[in-house]
Amino acid sequence: MTGTLWGIGIGPGDPELLTAKAIRLLGELPVLAWPAPLDGDGMARTIAASYVPAGKVEIPIRLSFRPERDDTDEAYDKAAAAIAEHLAAGRDVGVLCEGDPLFFGSFIYVLTRLRGRFPVQVVPGVSSPMAAAAMAVRPLSLLDDAVAIIPATRPDALIRAMLEPAEAAVIMKVGRHLPRIKALLAGMGLLESAVVVERATLPDQRVLALAEAETLSYFSVILVHP
Amino acid sequence: MTGTLWGIGIGPGDPELLTAKAIRLLGELPVLAWPAPLDGDGMARTIAASYVPAGKVEIPIRLSFRPERDDTDEAYDKAAAAIAEHLAAGRDVGVLCEGDPLFFGSFIYVLTRLRGRFPVQVVPGVSSPMAAAAMAVRPLSLLDDAVAIIPATRPDALIRAMLEPAEAAVIMKVGRHLPRIKALLAGMGLLESAVVVERATLPDQRVLALAEAETLSYFSVILVHP
Repeated sequence: MTGTLWGIGIGPGDPELLTAKAIRLLGELPVLAWPAPLDGDGMARTIAASYVPAGKVEIPIRLSFRPERDDTDEAYDKAAAAIAEHLAAGRDVGVLCEGDPLFFGSFIYVLTRLRGRFPVQVVPGVSSPMAAAAMAVRPLSLLDDAVAIIPATRPDALIRAMLEPAEAAVIMKVGRHLPRIKALLAGMGLLESAVVVERATLPDQRVLALAEAETLSYFSVILVHP
Repeated sequence: MTGTLWGIGIGPGDPELLTAKAIRLLGELPVLAWPAPLDGDGMARTIAASYVPAGKVEIPIRLSFRPERDDTDEAYDKAAAAIAEHLAAGRDVGVLCEGDPLFFGSFIYVLTRLRGRFPVQVVPGVSSPMAAAAMAVRPLSLLDDAVAIIPATRPDALIRAMLEPAEAAVIMKVGRHLPRIKALLAGMGLLESAVVVERATLPDQRVLALAEAETLSYFSVILVHP
């Protein structure tokens, strides 16, 4: 009997935005893995902290987050091997994932390495676009809106092609792309109505008009209605 | 002192997919409103049932759901008036909303009628596209994917314009539009890889290849990778 691999969405940041199912599994599962920087607990483990009882086996997935040396594959190969050992021994493993596991989620790195070999279950979580809309108290999409969700890392032409037919749009992972995105939206007449939410639901959250934003973290979500 | 209007996302259907915050508020708030058919509790109240203590003031928002006589505005005008009375008297009111309140959420009908007059707070919830991906154990979007989310009610030309630049797409609210959407996706070479999840996370959920689907409820989500 092998164990089950669980992808567990833990939501956007506020520990009260975990689902009852995620909270139950954090208590029950014998092994938990979580992405983290080279030192310390990192965001996922911190969000989940109050729900993780002492004495778990824990597998930190250590990533340098340095663009000049991408160690993502290496870190996930190593983590997948450690997780596979527990699963093969019959122990269920939960992998914590900020937001939702399969919507831009880091859990996909584990899933692609282990699927087919072990049973997999996924607990969906609250995603950052919905969290951002909630914190701004601004509808993300109405009734029959076509919605575009685009990482700011993508080229202008692709962002424009996604925005043009849409009635509602979300631009994620803004960070250092802010000046380019502002210029692009200004050129489309969309800057004035755009709102940005940085670190939605975290204690240092900011909600502001995009036109007024001068620097933004990677964890920023722009809401715009083309 | 007026009360606060709370939009409360209660997730896709499984009562364990409410957030801890939604569960706490269902216990604490003195007045709860929820959309429902002309008779009975309806889906939102049923999902939340185990978290609602006896003795609440409850405001059902009765809708006929008959396309030949759209009573949505009338029902929400009446509900907003009843909700406003409680808020004006200083009582907080929670409005239950399937999925997320601001992502195609029925809460928007209440919000547009009462915003500006009362303080509003929103608790984001797990949305059906993420729930569908979780139940199919299929990544919705990777890393830097551009994602299109389109209601099946929209015309072919719009759906095509949204799908073409995207790497990942979700087609929601399929229901009676199934034959047209299948033909459209087949014409774009996307039918074979498309998966559909009907009533994600509910006991009668189905996950199947779209090519094999013959009838689908309104509560169906297609996952496709253009």
